[in-house]
Amino acid sequence: MTSYTAINLIKRPQAGPISSELFEVVQKPIPQVGPGEILVKQNHMSLDPAMFGWMSPDTESYIAPVELGTVMRSSGVGEVVASKHPDFQVGDRAMGMMGWQEYALGHGAGFNKVEVPLPDETILSIFALPGLTATQGLFNVGKPQQGETIIVTGAAGSVGSLVGQLAKAEGLNVIGVVGTDEKADWIVNKLGFDGAINYQSSELDGQLAKLAPNGIDLYFENTGGPIQNLIFERMNAHGRVVVCGMIADYSKPVPSPGPNWIPIIKKRLTIQGFTMPDHFAEVPSLLAKLTPYVMSGKIKHRSHVLEGLESAIEGLNLFFTGENKGKLMVKL
Amino acid sequence: MTSYTAINLIKRPQAGPISSELFEVVQKPIPQVGPGEILVKQNHMSLDPAMFGWMSPDTESYIAPVELGTVMRSSGVGEVVASKHPDFQVGDRAMGMMGWQEYALGHGAGFNKVEVPLPDETILSIFALPGLTATQGLFNVGKPQQGETIIVTGAAGSVGSLVGQLAKAEGLNVIGVVGTDEKADWIVNKLGFDGAINYQSSELDGQLAKLAPNGIDLYFENTGGPIQNLIFERMNAHGRVVVCGMIADYSKPVPSPGPNWIPIIKKRLTIQGFTMPDHFAEVPSLLAKLTPYVMSGKIKHRSHVLEGLESAIEGLNLFFTGENKGKLMVKL
Repeated sequence: MTSYTAINLIKRPQAGPISSELFEVVQKPIPQVGPGEILVKQNHMSLDPAMFGWMSPDTESYIAPVELGTVMRSSGVGEVVASKHPDFQVGDRAMGMMGWQEYALGHGAGFNKVEVPLPDETILSIFALPGLTATQGLFNVGKPQQGETIIVTGAAGSVGSLVGQLAKAEGLNVIGVVGTDEKADWIVNKLGFDGAINYQSSELDGQLAKLAPNGIDLYFENTGGPIQNLIFERMNAHGRVVVCGMIADYSKPVPSPGPNWIPIIKKRLTIQGFTMPDHFAEVPSLLAKLTPYVMSGKIKHRSHVLEGLESAIEGLNLFFTGENKGKLMVKL
Repeated sequence: MTSYTAINLIKRPQAGPISSELFEVVQKPIPQVGPGEILVKQNHMSLDPAMFGWMSPDTESYIAPVELGTVMRSSGVGEVVASKHPDFQVGDRAMGMMGWQEYALGHGAGFNKVEVPLPDETILSIFALPGLTATQGLFNVGKPQQGETIIVTGAAGSVGSLVGQLAKAEGLNVIGVVGTDEKADWIVNKLGFDGAINYQSSELDGQLAKLAPNGIDLYFENTGGPIQNLIFERMNAHGRVVVCGMIADYSKPVPSPGPNWIPIIKKRLTIQGFTMPDHFAEVPSLLAKLTPYVMSGKIKHRSHVLEGLESAIEGLNLFFTGENKGKLMVKL
């Protein structure tokens, strides 16, 4: 093997599904490592909703978009196969922003050794972007209090499923909003959510009233969509809304309107958006907060693993259809 | 004179203009003061958008609604005409929640002596609800920084006009949104705003771009309405939105939708609603913050004075039409 496959972004996405026209699949020679460099063979590559932001031409976004003609950005886990870096040995496991490619060359910055004896799927499902995002959003933005009621949209998703389990471990009443009955069953019966609502079912307001008889104190938003209005109406005074994702709107030519703002005044709500790139300096403290929950067995996950690098392209559309079951990733 | 006029709320408002059917005008005997009581003859009575909340049946609201069959709630300034209270002498000026009536009896709690030698109009325009609201919202919620750009809706209103002038005194670039050219002229040429936009004119986005070339850091919302979307699009990263009023929606049967939430994530916005009843304990510190600006001549105001108690009923509709010029009040 002297060459490897990589996928470059060559066109910005428009509204609608992601198509293969946005990408080119290229062969590259496997590089030699120079002084201070490591070469990682990637084994599992993460797919995340944040990628729609990274591909977008919006210069106001929170992180520079992927330059056209360069490899698509992503995080992954792999094995060090060559090293001239003092901190990495051949055979070490490493994670980092490796991109859509079989091999990644780096200077060590942005790569971390994986020392916990957990499978790649667990690392990418919990200790990478989803877990960091869930921990930052729930604890540092949402400030949950024991006995409160939280509602989480996209509750079977990579971030939402962790938010709900962490909140449950903190003693909150936890309601999840999902898009299929199978997901509703999973979050209640496997993850321990107190209740689930399939937003495609009827009588949403009645279901909300039943599951949140004392109103909603904390609303963790991963999706957007019309249920926003019903949740807003049931927020308690001084409620907090953590805005983490709006996947329901990323592929729409015209994003849906949000709820009217009168409840923001009447209930003195605080609504706060956040993204992880603002908080990369806090990663060590976030991991320190998250790890005990995981090690004590309180956090379950499931992975939806696609096979082969090129499956990533079509795989992104699973975020729009909601057909992925668990944390989406690609096995190389 | 042995009797006086009072106006009771007898019916809750529905969507649409306020009508006289909601009220009954009654004559009451002027009471004798008992031990610890004072009797105030009210001279000027304030009309405020908050009254729509006080009349509303919504039990989730931030302050108990006015009970049907009792006098309509309002603040006012008057003269003590009888006192068996050690802190008040006949002839003292007092302000407080006096209601829609010519005389108010109280135990002293909720009444404050007015010691500053300023006319009633100034007291009600600056040192009552509008000034407290502007000071709390701008400084404690909005946290303005010198050099930032703020946009204020309802900028010729009782709260908005103060917010803009306080922000200007703090060294911000201040843009006001108003509903008439006369108001635009007033806030720029008399109050010192850096720019004004009449939301009824065209090319709103072009006007915004010109007045806020570096984007908007702080958005003080008094009105709601479609310009929300344009402002949202121009918010800077880590921008703050202070939600103080939604007067454009209070009289609508179906409130208008708000902006889509994608900018909340992309720009990591914080949107916070507040109302003064949560902050009555902070009134002394708010007045201490506000007073030096007023005494140094940095805060101008104008009053729109209606004549006679019963003018209050129809007067409330001026908030919906935006026809009031300055702080709305009634001279008794």
